[in-house]
Amino acid sequence: MSVSQSKFVSYIEENQKKLIDSLAEVVAIPSVSGDASYRQEVFKMGEWLKNKLSSLGADVSTHDLGIQQLDGKEVPLPPVVVGSIGSDSSKKTVLVYGHYDVQPALKSDGWNTEPFELVHDEKTGCLYGRGSTDDKGPILGWLNVIEAHKELGLDLPVNLKFCFEGMEESGSVGLDQFVVKNKDTLFDGVDAVCISDNYWLGTKKPCVTNGLRGIAYFKLSISGPARDLHSGVFGGMVHEPMTDLIKIMSSLVTPQGEITIPGINEQVAPLTDEERKVYDVMDFDIAFVDEATGSQTTVSDNKPDVLMARMRYPSLSLHGIEGAFAEAGSKTVIPRRVIGKFSIRLVPDMDPAKVIECVEKHVESEFAKLKSKNTMKLSPDHPGKPWIADPKHWNYEAAFNATEKIYGVRPDLTREGGSIPITLTFADALQKNVLLLPMGRSDDGAHSTNEKLDLSNYVKGTQLLGTYLYEIAKVAQ
Amino acid sequence: MSVSQSKFVSYIEENQKKLIDSLAEVVAIPSVSGDASYRQEVFKMGEWLKNKLSSLGADVSTHDLGIQQLDGKEVPLPPVVVGSIGSDSSKKTVLVYGHYDVQPALKSDGWNTEPFELVHDEKTGCLYGRGSTDDKGPILGWLNVIEAHKELGLDLPVNLKFCFEGMEESGSVGLDQFVVKNKDTLFDGVDAVCISDNYWLGTKKPCVTNGLRGIAYFKLSISGPARDLHSGVFGGMVHEPMTDLIKIMSSLVTPQGEITIPGINEQVAPLTDEERKVYDVMDFDIAFVDEATGSQTTVSDNKPDVLMARMRYPSLSLHGIEGAFAEAGSKTVIPRRVIGKFSIRLVPDMDPAKVIECVEKHVESEFAKLKSKNTMKLSPDHPGKPWIADPKHWNYEAAFNATEKIYGVRPDLTREGGSIPITLTFADALQKNVLLLPMGRSDDGAHSTNEKLDLSNYVKGTQLLGTYLYEIAKVAQ
Repeated sequence: MSVSQSKFVSYIEENQKKLIDSLAEVVAIPSVSGDASYRQEVFKMGEWLKNKLSSLGADVSTHDLGIQQLDGKEVPLPPVVVGSIGSDSSKKTVLVYGHYDVQPALKSDGWNTEPFELVHDEKTGCLYGRGSTDDKGPILGWLNVIEAHKELGLDLPVNLKFCFEGMEESGSVGLDQFVVKNKDTLFDGVDAVCISDNYWLGTKKPCVTNGLRGIAYFKLSISGPARDLHSGVFGGMVHEPMTDLIKIMSSLVTPQGEITIPGINEQVAPLTDEERKVYDVMDFDIAFVDEATGSQTTVSDNKPDVLMARMRYPSLSLHGIEGAFAEAGSKTVIPRRVIGKFSIRLVPDMDPAKVIECVEKHVESEFAKLKSKNTMKLSPDHPGKPWIADPKHWNYEAAFNATEKIYGVRPDLTREGGSIPITLTFADALQKNVLLLPMGRSDDGAHSTNEKLDLSNYVKGTQLLGTYLYEIAKVAQ
Repeated sequence: MSVSQSKFVSYIEENQKKLIDSLAEVVAIPSVSGDASYRQEVFKMGEWLKNKLSSLGADVSTHDLGIQQLDGKEVPLPPVVVGSIGSDSSKKTVLVYGHYDVQPALKSDGWNTEPFELVHDEKTGCLYGRGSTDDKGPILGWLNVIEAHKELGLDLPVNLKFCFEGMEESGSVGLDQFVVKNKDTLFDGVDAVCISDNYWLGTKKPCVTNGLRGIAYFKLSISGPARDLHSGVFGGMVHEPMTDLIKIMSSLVTPQGEITIPGINEQVAPLTDEERKVYDVMDFDIAFVDEATGSQTTVSDNKPDVLMARMRYPSLSLHGIEGAFAEAGSKTVIPRRVIGKFSIRLVPDMDPAKVIECVEKHVESEFAKLKSKNTMKLSPDHPGKPWIADPKHWNYEAAFNATEKIYGVRPDLTREGGSIPITLTFADALQKNVLLLPMGRSDDGAHSTNEKLDLSNYVKGTQLLGTYLYEIAKVAQ
């Protein structure tokens, strides 16, 4: 480590109380984006960020995204807070993303402490509070890095740009267009992107994440009679839409999760021996899944198979049926029109357009087999592409090196099963390498009650983010 | 016809205005049983019936069935009105059933006229109003028969007993137990039962009905995770309850309506040549079904096949799924527990217990094939047996003869696809032949807007009910 780097790491180590106080200050602002009655708190949080960044010497601007309909009202969208520190052309420019809004939380939901009051429990070593890990802890991580350098009178090893949004928990309304529109202005000159908004795979070993599954969502509608019918009077006389739909839905996937739509599995990038070995050593246990699901229902008892099912293979889930009888009790209806909902999680090298084509072809062929007089219609939602970044890029090399320096271990290289759409937006709009560098652990309960961030993850995570910038300065070409 | 019989028929012919006025009087009482705020109107209607029967010389009693929970309130159940006229041991005793409550109706639902105001449209020849055909017209039919005899100074050809309830449109709460409890007291000495609460098969030819399908309703539950999961994170890793359920539901019935559960079809009484021929000549056209369903979705274009599908074969309908995503829009949930609802309509000689056994065996075998770690549970509702009456009994012979005399045509002998549970209760409790003798037509819109009864059906229907009693006196042994 260079002298500056060591000084920074020590400063963070020695100023833990200051770090906790800052996090407590922002957790105390209930910036819930999904509830119109909290909207002013989201604005307050955006204002706090802007002022804090300014006081740390950044150039900051806030950007209005317009209005939205929420809870039957028109409410203004929270601003995007954009900032930059440094413009030294001899340094790399790193864009960091975070979100300053949080999920809703009420003590009565089952919290042990007040959700918007940061509580440091010295027994568990955890900081409890809404937003502690998702995503105020990571945002504070970046601010702590800057503050430490200011206090120490040190220059940052890279130029930093920030993009902090206030709508991530509510669909990131307007952000995509904002990034695309400003790619050559606000985001000009960015060399790499770092997002700290996901989690370790387990609870012990850090990871860096270079892949996210995409999604293709389908609505399969079968219509028959012009009105709902009584099964006593009409049962047996007519083609029933539910019977047709259930037959088609049953042809999509096996109970073991194998997709049975021709042409889908063929699109998946083949597994190499090298990649295969990675799953053996990841910090992961089937017990994690059992604990998270509260059951013992994994499709396999083999750790790498379960990991690959989440990270590198597509999956197909049947979500439900609109228009059928869904209440409790017994009703003898023949529904006139039913819409089956299912989705396929996409992985490299699957092409959403080709996936939709395969699904269309398959359901048409299955429906033809039924010889039904009903009418079928497939409506795909706008799909989300899978994302994968090159882990050999200097952005990842820096993250690997930084993790080894702070945690003393080489991190797992993981992919996530779900999607974080902004990742793809940055990758596509800026055409730069994007890195997901998580701060928290898998058991932080990001959207749940008693959300927490381990103090050690907060402290070491802050050290990691800063060290990552130093490593970039060393390895980037 | 005997002189009395002819006098009766002529009296009805000549007193149509009186008949219409009586029906108008009862349609004006909105005796909606399904809405607590109308409960006093149901009582008013019961009181009207009691007074009317008394004034016609019947012995009448009303019977309290206790209270029920409705719309969050405790409300008293409407009384059963029981009466009798005559106790001549040389005559047969006929029990007639009807219900004096009606379905809800508001003009704003799409009625062309005020629903609780009987409107005689001379152009269409119809009497419009809620309850006109279901079931106030038929009840008035019986009262008209008695009144005519009183006015004409004639004795009835049989002893009559009445059982009029006020809860048929809301599940006949309490009636079953009432009938069973009073079978040897109020209903002692009954030789046959007649229920006028169904409809002609079509719009032109009268029918008598001797069969109703029963029902076995099933709830098939598949449980896996302890909580709903996100398909991004868990899709592919776990056995999904929906996938299992859909597979099993898809194994129950074909799109053509053939039940594919082993052991079910084998229980159905074989079709004889004699019975087969009956379907060819019934007043029925596939166009009736198309009009009723607003579609062209019959499983066959062959009239006898479609008729048999409704009347003499079982059917299996998939009604819906509880616990899955059923709203509009797109949600990527993996539901933790889903409950498939389906039912089988039962026909002679199916035994509900044996049907349940076959379904249990089948779903267990299908679930075992899935090799899923989820848990399956089948919960059958209390089943309803199919009902069939001997059409060679004098009760039916009288109905056939009476129809020929009034309509000049031999009626179709039909079965209904749905169930009228009280039919089975009377048949089982009293162990007597039960006849369904409808007054209205298939297009009366019993539970719909603009419910009507053709004036000719009301007049001839009244003549038919009276003539049926005369025919009983002639043919009953």
